[in-house]
Amino acid sequence: MSKIETPVVILNVKAYQESMGKNGLALAKACEEVTEESGVSTIICPQQFDLGWIARQVKIPCFAQHLDAKDVGSATGWVLPETAKEAGAQGTLINHAEHRITIADIDALITRCQTLGLTNVVCTNNIQVSAAVASLNPDMIAIEPPELIGTGVPVSKADPDIVTGSVTRVKEINKDVVVLCGAGISTGEDVKAAIELGTAGVLLASGVVKADDPKTVLLDLVSGI
Amino acid sequence: MSKIETPVVILNVKAYQESMGKNGLALAKACEEVTEESGVSTIICPQQFDLGWIARQVKIPCFAQHLDAKDVGSATGWVLPETAKEAGAQGTLINHAEHRITIADIDALITRCQTLGLTNVVCTNNIQVSAAVASLNPDMIAIEPPELIGTGVPVSKADPDIVTGSVTRVKEINKDVVVLCGAGISTGEDVKAAIELGTAGVLLASGVVKADDPKTVLLDLVSGI
Amino acid sequence: MSKIETPVVILNVKAYQESMGKNGLALAKACEEVTEESGVSTIICPQQFDLGWIARQVKIPCFAQHLDAKDVGSATGWVLPETAKEAGAQGTLINHAEHRITIADIDALITRCQTLGLTNVVCTNNIQVSAAVASLNPDMIAIEPPELIGTGVPVSKADPDIVTGSVTRVKEINKDVVVLCGAGISTGEDVKAAIELGTAGVLLASGVVKADDPKTVLLDLVSGI
Amino acid sequence: MSKIETPVVILNVKAYQESMGKNGLALAKACEEVTEESGVSTIICPQQFDLGWIARQVKIPCFAQHLDAKDVGSATGWVLPETAKEAGAQGTLINHAEHRITIADIDALITRCQTLGLTNVVCTNNIQVSAAVASLNPDMIAIEPPELIGTGVPVSKADPDIVTGSVTRVKEINKDVVVLCGAGISTGEDVKAAIELGTAGVLLASGVVKADDPKTVLLDLVSGI
Repeated sequence: MSKIETPVVILNVKAYQESMGKNGLALAKACEEVTEESGVSTIICPQQFDLGWIARQVKIPCFAQHLDAKDVGSATGWVLPETAKEAGAQGTLINHAEHRITIADIDALITRCQTLGLTNVVCTNNIQVSAAVASLNPDMIAIEPPELIGTGVPVSKADPDIVTGSVTRVKEINKDVVVLCGAGISTGEDVKAAIELGTAGVLLASGVVKADDPKTVLLDLVSGI
Repeated sequence: MSKIETPVVILNVKAYQESMGKNGLALAKACEEVTEESGVSTIICPQQFDLGWIARQVKIPCFAQHLDAKDVGSATGWVLPETAKEAGAQGTLINHAEHRITIADIDALITRCQTLGLTNVVCTNNIQVSAAVASLNPDMIAIEPPELIGTGVPVSKADPDIVTGSVTRVKEINKDVVVLCGAGISTGEDVKAAIELGTAGVLLASGVVKADDPKTVLLDLVSGI
Repeated sequence: MSKIETPVVILNVKAYQESMGKNGLALAKACEEVTEESGVSTIICPQQFDLGWIARQVKIPCFAQHLDAKDVGSATGWVLPETAKEAGAQGTLINHAEHRITIADIDALITRCQTLGLTNVVCTNNIQVSAAVASLNPDMIAIEPPELIGTGVPVSKADPDIVTGSVTRVKEINKDVVVLCGAGISTGEDVKAAIELGTAGVLLASGVVKADDPKTVLLDLVSGI
Repeated sequence: MSKIETPVVILNVKAYQESMGKNGLALAKACEEVTEESGVSTIICPQQFDLGWIARQVKIPCFAQHLDAKDVGSATGWVLPETAKEAGAQGTLINHAEHRITIADIDALITRCQTLGLTNVVCTNNIQVSAAVASLNPDMIAIEPPELIGTGVPVSKADPDIVTGSVTRVKEINKDVVVLCGAGISTGEDVKAAIELGTAGVLLASGVVKADDPKTVLLDLVSGI
């Protein structure tokens, strides 16, 4: 079971120029400071090559952006749950809209993460897929309509029904699953709306990563909680 | 153009339990010591999550095990040349037998690595594929018959013609390309045989990673040069 | 909604030498004769290149073995629901163990098949994945433990709990979904056992395709119903 | 070795609504009529589900749009060279811009096609990839800059150097390889320009498939030869 405190703001830094290497570390430090100052739980998902380096330097949880369901061993270039754990990750995103995997692999990764004590956040694209994933017993589900990702138009405003519908259907199937929402989130008001729609937090990326002053944006975001 | 000195021994640590986290760092340190003691060039390819952490702690070159030909930006969980560079990598494997990519992506990654100053080593599976890749102007080609990978039966003994054939065909097309060989290499004798067949070094994995004493194996390997 | 009569025997001819071209047509004709003689519903999934040719020559339903969730248009070499429909298919397998797809694509294909009037059969590998797929409202789910496929050891004997568990969980979530089972089925006794475990039929392949006399095997299979 | 007469016009009908089922057959018949009337060699690549059905009804060669490098046998939904051959195909496209495959698979498919007597046409995206593929000994190479596909802007006008460069480099490596060009071709003038640049024909799609009167467009196209 996840030991992540909710509500939570998860920052996926993707593969932006603004989040590589030292920039990625600065973003992680900004999250850490915001958590210290506000008491609100934040999580950062560094770029894959930076995970081990950043996870050893911040106190907030670091998550992998993606894992591959390959066996430990001869798997050149693939990223495994066991290596993420060893690198200091406390969890992972699974099945992000930019990195979809098969349903059999989602299922296998959830099981493997649970064995390792890695918190898993499975991304979904609509209400019925959220309901489907709930049957696989993930720790968290992040509903993100792909068409809103990166737009700055928050899902909580553009399509509140997909959020409340996901929360309702997921809880019917498995009340222990934590539901987050993502796509277009960039302000404290968006986060507040997401919480009011029944989620336990948000997953976001460009709104922070590409901001002139990420810490200020993060402070605004957590003010919505 | 590559600044890697040849002959060279490249250690791909794959995704073994024995090469995760601290074990991976110990393998990198062993390579570093062997290079210092022997003067022979070694390169390590850490697990992807460990790249940035290990690259900052050793003087020998660290290479990525694999790169994805995605654009910088919204590419959650994908591993980019730009991030590898920023993490401290000096090069990368491309198209390993366990992680094949399209020919268009091999071509695009070679170009992108050259722009970034990352040395690229493209893996191939037979003579005509080696010849084909030579036209794409990589820095290095590592010929590895997939059926010999992980067997301990060295390609230099089991199939010397594939090595000499690759060297000949590659040099005909592009004399600047450095040719290595891999698969089944585990002793100094294997390395010596590889050099005598016209290669500039070897790519290996399990023979070192799974050894009781990797440094001793590495010292034996470089003794073949 | 599916117009397929149950109980049903679905024959997936895969890509065997014994099921290409004329051999594939002969297998379809054998299914047709068995349905005529026994009154039991059979369905054939011809090799993809043979679909349009075979579907125009038999009265039993022909299903595609797989569909891609690509848009109609510039999709060279991909296989679309709309083309399958036009070719005479009445349905399709989705997410077979040998051709897994993402959960978002399973969801999209189910919706698209419903619009086109194509019956969809989604393959699953364990109880929780069966439950998950039930939330996507497929017409049918075929539970097939991958480790039993092609063994001749019937799932109904080797792992009856995975069958009854899938039936129970699927019906809880969506009572309209028809549950089949597959993997290792080759005799009428296996089919009888599958029906007794609560399924509405079976999905099978090598047991018929590689038989000396497929029609005799099919007659034995339907005798279990 | 290919028995296809050149110059040749290859029509890839892709997965358009206008090329499914009966529409696909009508396009094949139009090609057949144009070949009969003009004496110019044409080839059609029907949609995959239609291949066996159309190949049995026209005298011109039918090619698969794509093949998978899977072994004959348990390969549900994959499309194999052996099945294409049995369905009546005389050849195949390989590595189309909309369906890229690995270099190892291109190599394996070329060899397998040669064994089966299937003519192979490997698509490439630039000069060095054309040169690379030439080392794999394909029957034909079709150079198609991806950014021009479907634009109506002919590669022969927009980027003649990529065509002449490909012809030169390919012939240097393997003078027996036939070079075609594609992308944006829609008139006899485009075909004439392609031939003058040293190619032996063209590969095209939307310009014919989406035309109000495909036969008229085809007649214009072959007039360029």
